[in-house]
Order: sequence, then C-alpha cells, then structure tokens
Amino acid sequence: MNSSASSTIKKKRRQQIDINTLGQQLIQGNITALSRGITLVESENSNHQQQAEQLIEYCLPHANKSVRIGITGVPGVGKSTFIEAFGNHLTSLNKKVAVLAVDPSSSISKGSILGDKTRMEDLVKNKNAFIRPSPSGDSLGGVAKKTRESIILCEAAGFDTILIETVGVGQSETAVHSMVDFFLLLKLAGAGDELQGIKRGIIEMADAIIINKADKDNVKRAKMAKTEFQRALHLYPPKASEWIAKTATCSAIENKGIDTVWEMISDYVSQTKANNYFEANRKEQNKYWLIQTIEHHLKSNFYQRKNIQNLLDELLQKVKEGLVSPFSAAAKLLDEYKKLK
Amino acid sequence: MNSSASSTIKKKRRQQIDINTLGQQLIQGNITALSRGITLVESENSNHQQQAEQLIEYCLPHANKSVRIGITGVPGVGKSTFIEAFGNHLTSLNKKVAVLAVDPSSSISKGSILGDKTRMEDLVKNKNAFIRPSPSGDSLGGVAKKTRESIILCEAAGFDTILIETVGVGQSETAVHSMVDFFLLLKLAGAGDELQGIKRGIIEMADAIIINKADKDNVKRAKMAKTEFQRALHLYPPKASEWIAKTATCSAIENKGIDTVWEMISDYVSQTKANNYFEANRKEQNKYWLIQTIEHHLKSNFYQRKNIQNLLDELLQKVKEGLVSPFSAAAKLLDEYKKLK
Repeated sequence: MNSSASSTIKKKRRQQIDINTLGQQLIQGNITALSRGITLVESENSNHQQQAEQLIEYCLPHANKSVRIGITGVPGVGKSTFIEAFGNHLTSLNKKVAVLAVDPSSSISKGSILGDKTRMEDLVKNKNAFIRPSPSGDSLGGVAKKTRESIILCEAAGFDTILIETVGVGQSETAVHSMVDFFLLLKLAGAGDELQGIKRGIIEMADAIIINKADKDNVKRAKMAKTEFQRALHLYPPKASEWIAKTATCSAIENKGIDTVWEMISDYVSQTKANNYFEANRKEQNKYWLIQTIEHHLKSNFYQRKNIQNLLDELLQKVKEGLVSPFSAAAKLLDEYKKLK
Repeated sequence: MNSSASSTIKKKRRQQIDINTLGQQLIQGNITALSRGITLVESENSNHQQQAEQLIEYCLPHANKSVRIGITGVPGVGKSTFIEAFGNHLTSLNKKVAVLAVDPSSSISKGSILGDKTRMEDLVKNKNAFIRPSPSGDSLGGVAKKTRESIILCEAAGFDTILIETVGVGQSETAVHSMVDFFLLLKLAGAGDELQGIKRGIIEMADAIIINKADKDNVKRAKMAKTEFQRALHLYPPKASEWIAKTATCSAIENKGIDTVWEMISDYVSQTKANNYFEANRKEQNKYWLIQTIEHHLKSNFYQRKNIQNLLDELLQKVKEGLVSPFSAAAKLLDEYKKLK
C-alpha cells in the first residue's frame, strides 16, 4: 500500500469519525455542532453534501419530535418583532426554539430575512433559542431543501419548537406550508380594505391570521380587521385537519396577545394529534418532498438540454403563429429528447 | 415493383388524399366531415392518431376564430337545460354553436355528460348547432387533449361559439379553464349556505357565477344567493384579464335571463380584446398545453418503470419510518433511473 492510498483511507476514516462525532455532539444539544451541521447542509460542495447526507441519516431517528410553525407576512408587518416576542414567550414556557427561514429571493432583494440578527436582540442572546439566517440560493427548491434538512438537525439537537419565517411575496409560502404543522399569517389592519392584496391561496393555507400592531390608536382598526378576516375564513371549505382557522390580534412590540397565539397552536396540536392528522400530514409532507424532488430533476434534465431549448423556442414560435398544435409540438420535443438519451 | 408494394403506396396515397379531402370538406362546414374528424382525434389507433395530427395541422390556419366558453356546475344544477336554452339563444343571433365536454370520469360514473343527446331535444335538431358527447377515457390528460383538438376542428368548420361542459367535481375544471376564454359557473340557490361545498379554486376561476332555476318560488332565494356570491367575489384579488367577475340569475327552463349571460360574455370579449388579454391568454394556453404534455410524459416514463415502482415503494416505506430523508430517497431513485436509461 503506498502512502497516498493510506492517507486517503485515513482521511476517509477521519471524515467518517467526524460525522459520527458531529452527530453525537449535535444530539447532545451542542449548538456549535448544530451550526456546523447546518453549514454542511447548506454547502454546495459535493463532498460536504455527502457528509451532510450522512449526518442527516444519523440524526433522523432523533428528529420529528417538535412543533413546526410557519410564519408569513409581507415586509413591514413586523415579523421579526413578532418572532422575538413569540420566541421569548416560548422559552419562558421552557421550550427550546429554533428560528429558520425560507427566502429564495434574498440574494436579489438583499433584504434577507433573519439576516440581520440584531433585529432580534433579546432572542439571539437567549440560550434556549437558536436563530439561523436564511440560506443563500436562487432556486426555491434548493433553499427549501436546505431549510427542511436544517429542521431535522434542529430537532435532533433538542429544539422542540421550530419557527420558519417566509416573506409572503413569492412561491415560498407553498414550500413552507409543506414543511410545517401550523401555518400562521401575520397581517396589518389596513384602511378598510383588509382583504386587498392578499396573494391567492395564502388565506386558504392559514391556520391562523394574526393582526399585528394592535396597539395605541390602532386597536380598534385591528379588531375590525380581525372580524373581517374571520368572515372571509368562513367562506372556505373545511380543512383536512378539521381545524377551523382562527383569527386574533396582537401587539408584538407591547408583548400583548402573544400568549393567545401559542394557546391557539397548542389547541391545534392537541386536536390534530387526537384525530391523527398531525402524524398523517407529516408523512404526506415527506412524500410530497420526495415526489417534488424527483419531478424537479426530471424536468430540469429535460429543459437544460441545449437541443431541447432550441427546438422548444422554435416550436413555441410555431405554436404561437398557429402553425403547429401544442400537442404535436410536445410530441416532436419528446422524440428529440429520446434521441438525446 | 411487386403488387403488395404498389398497393401499399396506393393505400398511403389514398389516405393522404382522404385527409386532404376530409380537411377541405370540414373547412367548408360539412358536419359529417367534422364528425369523422373528431372520431379520428378520439381514436386510440396509432394510424388514426397520425391522420388526426395531419388533419389538425390542415385545419389550424382556419381555427382560432371563436369564443370558447367553459360551463361547469355540480350535477343537478341544470347544465343541459342551460346549454339548450343558451345554445338556442346564440343560434337565434346567427351564431354557430358547438357543444363539447370534458368528463374523464364518465366511464366510471356512467352518467356521461352530453352522452344523452335527448336531453337537448331542440338544440340537437338545430342546424346551426353541433353537439358531441364527451370522449371516452380515464385520464384527464387524454380526454382534455381530445377535447382541445376537437375545438380546433369545430372552429375550422365555422363554429364561432364553442361551449365546453364539465362536471364541477374533479380536476377537469382546471383543464377546461385552460382551454376557454370565459369560464362560467352554474349554481343553485341553497338554503342560506350558498357558499358551502364549493370546490377550492373554482370560484376564483369563474368569470361569471350564474344562479340557475331562478323561477317560481325560488326567485327570491336565487337573488339572495346572487348577492352573497357577488360579495364573495369581491374578496378575490383582481384577475389578469382586468375583468371583474359578474353574477346573475337565470331560469333556463323558463328561458329567462339567458340573454343577459350572453351580453356579459360579449362585454368580456370586447373588453379583453381591447386590452389584448384575449389573444395573450390564448397564446399562454397553447404554451400551457405544450408544457403540460411534455411534463406528463416525462413523469409517466419515470413512474411506469417496474424497477422504479418497486424502489419507490421500498423508499416511501423507509421515509415513512424516518430511516431515510425524502431528499436522499429521491437521489437514490434518480440514480436508479439513470441506470435504466
């Protein structure tokens, strides 16, 4: 055996040991190990990705024991202030809180959510809280995968309440909705037209709509907004969880109504654990991510081919001009793809 | 040249001539040719499918000049009676009306929509109307493709108003919505809870909600339902078409309010032609069907593989038991697929 081969083996063994050690430290609640684990998960390096996969398999048996809460709302609604107040309330109840984010747009908008930890001055110093800025990346699929794997690591490290923040302006709500147990929409009282500007589908997803900034001279308007949303929620068909979406007002800055939000979520958890939706939903979500990942790869493998791109452009033009039907254009593209494989 | 080869050539030439002749007759408005064309489109025989493709390419330059209207509503709402009244009204305005259906469930439920032409006694005898029962088939994709190609043939044959019926109980609404210009939801006045039981998303798709059976002692209730739906429609964000969804009542059986529905649709057409949405939407729909068809094939090519099915079952079980993460399960499946190709 030459020395290079032996060093490769040693290196491999060391990496193997590293991951096991890291995993062990992580499940003992070591925050540095958790941070290192998430860094592995977020790395684009293929060696790191392999290690991340090992780490996740190591952690999986210790994960899953938490409540995962999605929190969304447009910029300006006070998400950071709410998460700070909510997180501190949870730790005062002896909970261990991890805060993650799904924000694929951050690299473009620069206003990365959770990027500025100083926005959560108290929570960041709280030893029972773990805040991780949003992972970088342009594709929602990639960012969502990183966040979802980070959830597993946080849970294995003993965090029992996971808050996942998202900005209510993209497709990220669906992704977050598909990785949480409870989906919370933060809103502000508007000038009478509270229902304008809500993205299609977000209200349907919400398990609770919380009107924030119900303070000072805004209390009355917030209460009116709450009533209006409550009425709107009645228009939707019942949820598979059998949970009836709730509304409430709160003031994150004055720390009012935060306890009510947690009570609401606790009720939800008891109710959906009793009717078995909680577990069933998590299994359904796992299946969703498996299928999503496969289909994403199948599609990108097709669309990334140069020949396909060219032919697609050409045929789209012909379809546009009414020279080819969309179905025969599709058949031509699939024939071409068969030849490429 | 032996006689068999020569007969093959003759046969091919004859088929070629047949399709051209059929196309010629069809664009002259020959109903028998139209029916034969649709039969080709609906055939599962691969030879017929090739001919159908030729016929469609032949007809495409003559198609596209029509208003395509989707009509949905749960069984019992009076779709047939409405279509009969509406169709007769349209022909009285010198329109040529074709009625098609998308109903993938018909083979199971047996209650095929449009299957029983006798339900439209007058319209079926009307020489400016063409009624075609729903195509058979279990997969929505297949049935939708047939319907969409039939639209092209009907338009080439000079039909300027295409009504596409669907039962509001499956996924077929999205398919129909993606092949029409205007989407009409038929409803009944209920006992105060008019908004219950509406499938998610259907109201959002509707360009008009028409409360049918506004006759006899039901008129008042129908008007109340109209008001309630109008209020619900306000809760939705504005449509890309800039069209504000309308509500109305009608009695198909007493032939009341039918003219209002057509006026509504005419307004929609003028408005969306003026703001260029009408054309843009049709182009978008063509693109949608092209992409849909491709992705449907990519997926079924993956899931149909026996090896993939077995591995998927195995991995889903492991994901369920928390032994494998959905992402690494997906990676394993994609590796296996790569080997198969």
